[in-house]
Amino acid sequence: MLIAGTEVFGTGGKVRAIDPSTGDELEPAFGHGGADEVDRACAAAREAFPAYRGLPDAKRAELLERIADRIESLGDALIERAHRETGLPVARLTGERGRTTGQLRLFAEVVREGSWAGVRVDPALPDRKPLPRSDIRQRKIPLGPVAVFGASNFPLAFSVAGGDTAAALAAGCPVVVKGHDAHPGTSELVARAVTGAVADLGLPPGTFSLLFGSGPDLGIRLVTDPRIQAVGFTGSRSGGLAIVAAAQARPQPIPVYAEMSSTNPVFLLPGALAERGAEIADGFVASLTLGSGQFCTNPGLVLAVDGPDLRAFLEAAGAAVAASRATTMLTPNIARSYADGVAALSAHPAVEVLARGAETDLPNACQPALLATDADSFTSDVALQQEVFGACSLVVRCRDAAQVRAVAEGLEGQLTATVHAADGDRAEAAELLPVLELKAGRILFNGWPTGVEVGHAMVHGGPFPATSDSRTTSVGTLAIERFLRPVAYQDVPASLLPSAIADRG
Amino acid sequence: MLIAGTEVFGTGGKVRAIDPSTGDELEPAFGHGGADEVDRACAAAREAFPAYRGLPDAKRAELLERIADRIESLGDALIERAHRETGLPVARLTGERGRTTGQLRLFAEVVREGSWAGVRVDPALPDRKPLPRSDIRQRKIPLGPVAVFGASNFPLAFSVAGGDTAAALAAGCPVVVKGHDAHPGTSELVARAVTGAVADLGLPPGTFSLLFGSGPDLGIRLVTDPRIQAVGFTGSRSGGLAIVAAAQARPQPIPVYAEMSSTNPVFLLPGALAERGAEIADGFVASLTLGSGQFCTNPGLVLAVDGPDLRAFLEAAGAAVAASRATTMLTPNIARSYADGVAALSAHPAVEVLARGAETDLPNACQPALLATDADSFTSDVALQQEVFGACSLVVRCRDAAQVRAVAEGLEGQLTATVHAADGDRAEAAELLPVLELKAGRILFNGWPTGVEVGHAMVHGGPFPATSDSRTTSVGTLAIERFLRPVAYQDVPASLLPSAIADRG
Repeated sequence: MLIAGTEVFGTGGKVRAIDPSTGDELEPAFGHGGADEVDRACAAAREAFPAYRGLPDAKRAELLERIADRIESLGDALIERAHRETGLPVARLTGERGRTTGQLRLFAEVVREGSWAGVRVDPALPDRKPLPRSDIRQRKIPLGPVAVFGASNFPLAFSVAGGDTAAALAAGCPVVVKGHDAHPGTSELVARAVTGAVADLGLPPGTFSLLFGSGPDLGIRLVTDPRIQAVGFTGSRSGGLAIVAAAQARPQPIPVYAEMSSTNPVFLLPGALAERGAEIADGFVASLTLGSGQFCTNPGLVLAVDGPDLRAFLEAAGAAVAASRATTMLTPNIARSYADGVAALSAHPAVEVLARGAETDLPNACQPALLATDADSFTSDVALQQEVFGACSLVVRCRDAAQVRAVAEGLEGQLTATVHAADGDRAEAAELLPVLELKAGRILFNGWPTGVEVGHAMVHGGPFPATSDSRTTSVGTLAIERFLRPVAYQDVPASLLPSAIADRG
Repeated sequence: MLIAGTEVFGTGGKVRAIDPSTGDELEPAFGHGGADEVDRACAAAREAFPAYRGLPDAKRAELLERIADRIESLGDALIERAHRETGLPVARLTGERGRTTGQLRLFAEVVREGSWAGVRVDPALPDRKPLPRSDIRQRKIPLGPVAVFGASNFPLAFSVAGGDTAAALAAGCPVVVKGHDAHPGTSELVARAVTGAVADLGLPPGTFSLLFGSGPDLGIRLVTDPRIQAVGFTGSRSGGLAIVAAAQARPQPIPVYAEMSSTNPVFLLPGALAERGAEIADGFVASLTLGSGQFCTNPGLVLAVDGPDLRAFLEAAGAAVAASRATTMLTPNIARSYADGVAALSAHPAVEVLARGAETDLPNACQPALLATDADSFTSDVALQQEVFGACSLVVRCRDAAQVRAVAEGLEGQLTATVHAADGDRAEAAELLPVLELKAGRILFNGWPTGVEVGHAMVHGGPFPATSDSRTTSVGTLAIERFLRPVAYQDVPASLLPSAIADRG
């Protein structure tokens, strides 16, 4: 662990990463921390907070850029370690590193640009009747130390120096990361980069710490530490809900931004199926099997009106799934859960198995699955509506467009909703769109939900249970707002006004 | 009750308002509703939602203005009824009506102006390497039907057509109000104005409903109705926390914006006390006793370094309190709680009673109270840190500036923090300001926290327990964001894009 710049080897249980492609344990062992380490990291973060939030914006931007530089300086060692710990391909990890450093640099731009502070000024109206108006100025300030939980499926972009960390540091919040046990070596390398950047700039060491430990023990301790003021989490629904409950039960409840589960429905409208069903089938299976389907935005649900065009689509998609190669999943646990989830769905009396990927002897492999059911069965059994994390998708055959909409209206909240529509589908798409707006954080047409662009307009969020707080996003620059709150300054003397809301000279 | 434009007399318990200045019951009786009425109102709100949120911005703005017009058309009848039900002076109620209609019209401007939609556009980059970028556009959409709980202390501005209702309607959310039993007649009059405005514009009647009922029964039913998507509440800490707990326990948790309790600390710095102690004393007692102290922002706590200047201040303030007239409180319950709260504090061994207002035989009167204690006693007993709703303030004598800051650092979250500082106090004020930023939603200098300006820069909010969600405000135009969430539109065809994010022709 790295607590406020100091190396600490936890005295709790030891954990080694596992190379999921072989099942072998990797050296070295990492020691789990407990109450003492949480206390040290949180005390250091709280101590660092006033100085860190008081830095000029340019300095915080520089920190983010320095972290990006230092991550790049880790070179191939980082990619190799991440590859061994996660089984993800080197090319994918190289891309993910670019996304991670790009995200840090984008937040640096946001910090420098300044509108994140949400400045609003109502000038004094001394002559107003019946009462004069005071000078009132508003800006946003950081909430305080933030706890970030690394996710297993993006060992760089949603982990130690991922989106949550970048947004919190940008906002002016020190960060305490609970690293994911699936990639401790990767986490340590990145944490050294962050700690090094903090030291390079002479910032308070408590600005950043990395802890390892068990979720129920160290994780819940971290969330309930009174110095922690917000939480960023990406992971399972059960894990997210446990953190939300712990945060709500504190004497002072705090916001939790948990990105949890989503089946990411894809609507195939009749015109699109007729015009380019085979092409859609290719794109669908490529998106479904990308990264063994281990994406929050994996297309796990397909809705369409039954008929010859859908049957042709399913034949093409089924053939592509059957031809797909098994790929290594992130951890033995994830591979087991995937296999169990697919087995349970396949055994459901209302489910038909359309295709499975090739069998394999590789350990921890994902054998893709394409399943189908009918709309009545789907809506009447919530077991069919749960996310299976991995390359598994369930096709729901509907009687007509009205039933497609009815199924859409009954869905839980989602990260994404995708529509494939041709020009002739316009009327149906126009009826569907307002339904989808209430269900998802992102609506996309004629594309695939995997691949979440890091930009200003992105929303990676959505109604519960996709996330615990639909009013925000965990990807894109709007994410900084999660760690801010507004403060109004009324008649504060000019010499004391924070520079963001001071009069320009 | 008025449910989606229809008059309904509840079959539950009957309630009559009480004229607090006489203790007499007022006619007519109002019937409490229950499960059926909640169901009807929520079903109508959900049904109205798609049409209401789909209206052009100009139409929603027109509704808000029409409501304001219709409230004004109620004329003296509204003021008279409110005066009888609350005991608040006619002049105050006339001012509050102006604030209420001004607030509605300000939100109309906000809706027309359009930036509330938070539009962000990342244009497509088809030639980007290695991957092209899609066209991604973001806007904010309304959450859905909102439950609003009327507050007793502002029968117009924080009640049926108060800030929460105005912000929710502006955002595009239908509203179901639970009217406060302390002013049912006032609530009915205002609800008729809203219902009339909805009808005038031909909008779906479910856009607005008013219910009466008991908090634990009808209130909790309303919060847990699956169609309700957010809650606005102003009231007690216990009431707010019960609503938060109910909202969190739903299968789909929803945001609750509860504005609860605050003692609104006032810091009197040495230079200010020396320069203008007597003037500050006058202002303080005027703010303390305004409206019988029944403001969320009532200055219930004063912190200063002990010494001759503080003693002179307390003498002047004590004399002003002793000379103050007893005024009628809003309800018998509030008057009883106030008397009990002051009695408990006065009986505390570490508390000295500096002054009480004149005794009176009037029913439900508030006899102002100025009490004092020392900083060590204050910090060691949370009983001294609780809000007493009404014109009661506790002065905490501190040894030195360091102890003032230490007490400040130990305070719970607050709606406001006030500093009285002279030029010579600059250094001390500069040290205090960052502490106060973390404690309060609004910081004001050389003024008084009562009187919450409705503008763009106002924050009427603050860290827990001042509110249940510090990231927002319940007064001012930023309040609209409470009822919105962002949605991203990726490659959505131009013909389907909502007008807010469509290309301008």
